[in-house]
Amino acid sequence: MTHPVTTLGIVGLGLIGASLAAGLKQRQAPVTIVGADQSDETLAEALRLGYIDEICDDPSALCERCDLIVLAVPVLSLEAVLTRLAPSLKQGNTRVTDVGSVKRVVTDAAETVFGERPPWLVPGHPIAGSEYSGVGAANPDLYANHQVILTPEERTDPEAVKQVSWLWEQVGATVETMTVERHDEVLAATSHLPHLLAFSLVDSLAHESEKYEIFHYAAGGFRDFTRIAASDPTMWHDIFLSNDRATLDVLDRYIDHLGQVRQALAERNGDELFSVFTRAKKARDHFSRVLDARIQKTAD
Amino acid sequence: MTHPVTTLGIVGLGLIGASLAAGLKQRQAPVTIVGADQSDETLAEALRLGYIDEICDDPSALCERCDLIVLAVPVLSLEAVLTRLAPSLKQGNTRVTDVGSVKRVVTDAAETVFGERPPWLVPGHPIAGSEYSGVGAANPDLYANHQVILTPEERTDPEAVKQVSWLWEQVGATVETMTVERHDEVLAATSHLPHLLAFSLVDSLAHESEKYEIFHYAAGGFRDFTRIAASDPTMWHDIFLSNDRATLDVLDRYIDHLGQVRQALAERNGDELFSVFTRAKKARDHFSRVLDARIQKTAD
Repeated sequence: MTHPVTTLGIVGLGLIGASLAAGLKQRQAPVTIVGADQSDETLAEALRLGYIDEICDDPSALCERCDLIVLAVPVLSLEAVLTRLAPSLKQGNTRVTDVGSVKRVVTDAAETVFGERPPWLVPGHPIAGSEYSGVGAANPDLYANHQVILTPEERTDPEAVKQVSWLWEQVGATVETMTVERHDEVLAATSHLPHLLAFSLVDSLAHESEKYEIFHYAAGGFRDFTRIAASDPTMWHDIFLSNDRATLDVLDRYIDHLGQVRQALAERNGDELFSVFTRAKKARDHFSRVLDARIQKTAD
Repeated sequence: MTHPVTTLGIVGLGLIGASLAAGLKQRQAPVTIVGADQSDETLAEALRLGYIDEICDDPSALCERCDLIVLAVPVLSLEAVLTRLAPSLKQGNTRVTDVGSVKRVVTDAAETVFGERPPWLVPGHPIAGSEYSGVGAANPDLYANHQVILTPEERTDPEAVKQVSWLWEQVGATVETMTVERHDEVLAATSHLPHLLAFSLVDSLAHESEKYEIFHYAAGGFRDFTRIAASDPTMWHDIFLSNDRATLDVLDRYIDHLGQVRQALAERNGDELFSVFTRAKKARDHFSRVLDARIQKTAD
């Protein structure tokens, strides 16, 4: 049995794309990696660091050369990249996946460019990241013990799903599949909503406080709680415009819940507050155990 | 010049009280420490670990023995403790401070018990904590590089403020003063509101998700963001009932801000979202530098 990918293309060598390349090389995965990026400097650096084997600027040559191409570009750039690759993808046998935090925007882009959701496209999302960015921040272990969610459809080629799964497993990730809709709902709840709440809290407090004086009295808990509000504003602008519907749904349910807590506080209903805090602690403790078990499982 | 406290009483040897005692002993502060606690086991353990020099169960003997008493009990227990100590405090020269997260509740308790805010009472709050609790979790460095806020009033004895400041400086803390009202507003914004939002988010998501299935897909950012929702529900019940007014004020302003962000999302107003995210990142980066500078200053 030969391994399912011989030559891999990675378009976009930022943190996510370069970490995938670095992880494959560190684990000596038997693939040739061809890199493409709009920055010549980034490409030279990726080559120098040994993350990629070749550089390829030409879309048609890239598609001809590769079994599989990973699009590791910002989600609102996917349509432009697919448009450039379209003539070659229509002719060849190359399969494509991506790494975006929203999956509907990928299938929408493909439908716009190809008039359908192509069977060779496997939308994907590694649930991993960092506060740093760029090829210089690449981390070969970024995906170890992390989950990758793929969102294939009925029309998607099962062999393409196998190839993409194989790829992520090479860098230590666990692959799961779900529908595009479910992915975007789950991520709206566990990632997009928390980011929105943190951005809103910090902006709200900064508004009230002249020269941020209030932050002078904040401590470690506040630091943890607001860390995600230091994330890249451009990336999050793209994510929220791409996942506006699912985020609005979960945001409205949260606003409703917060309104009930507000009422309990206004009425000094200590029993109700205690119930909320107790249920939340129980759920948070459960989540903490889930994460610990995942790390332990991999360490065994 | 002699140091300002010869014999210190600590009532309540949980994490906060025992860490103060442990810090003083580790730094060889020239004070005798007398401990009181409703648990004999806790007292024996504190004595065994060398955190305290003596045990004293009798309120009148405690007041006679000590220049200064620190009340390190839950905020809603302060009135009962002050009532027990009242006959001796009225007669002697003992000064008193506390460690509660809300300061109005302390002055209210004193007014109830003594009919006025006594000049020998210096309400205090070390901005430090841990997810652990009890004498066994005591950390002699818990207050190093941390802030302690005191809220004296015009009638408060300046010598008492000096004594309490001296005490906290012995364990590496920085002491600042502000009004009771300002303290409770600042803490409502930087601590009580974030806890309420985190509790509400986790409870809201747990409600939606059968058997917490949704948490399976959460990652590190979510873990950081929700860590404070694992805090002790009883303690937070007390804090919110004690600081309901200031928390409601800042919560209402937050709900208003979140409503504006919701509207921007519903209208797909990318410019407005980008502005919020950019301002928040700037404020968060500033706060992060403030914390780093504070740590660096002490390390120098």
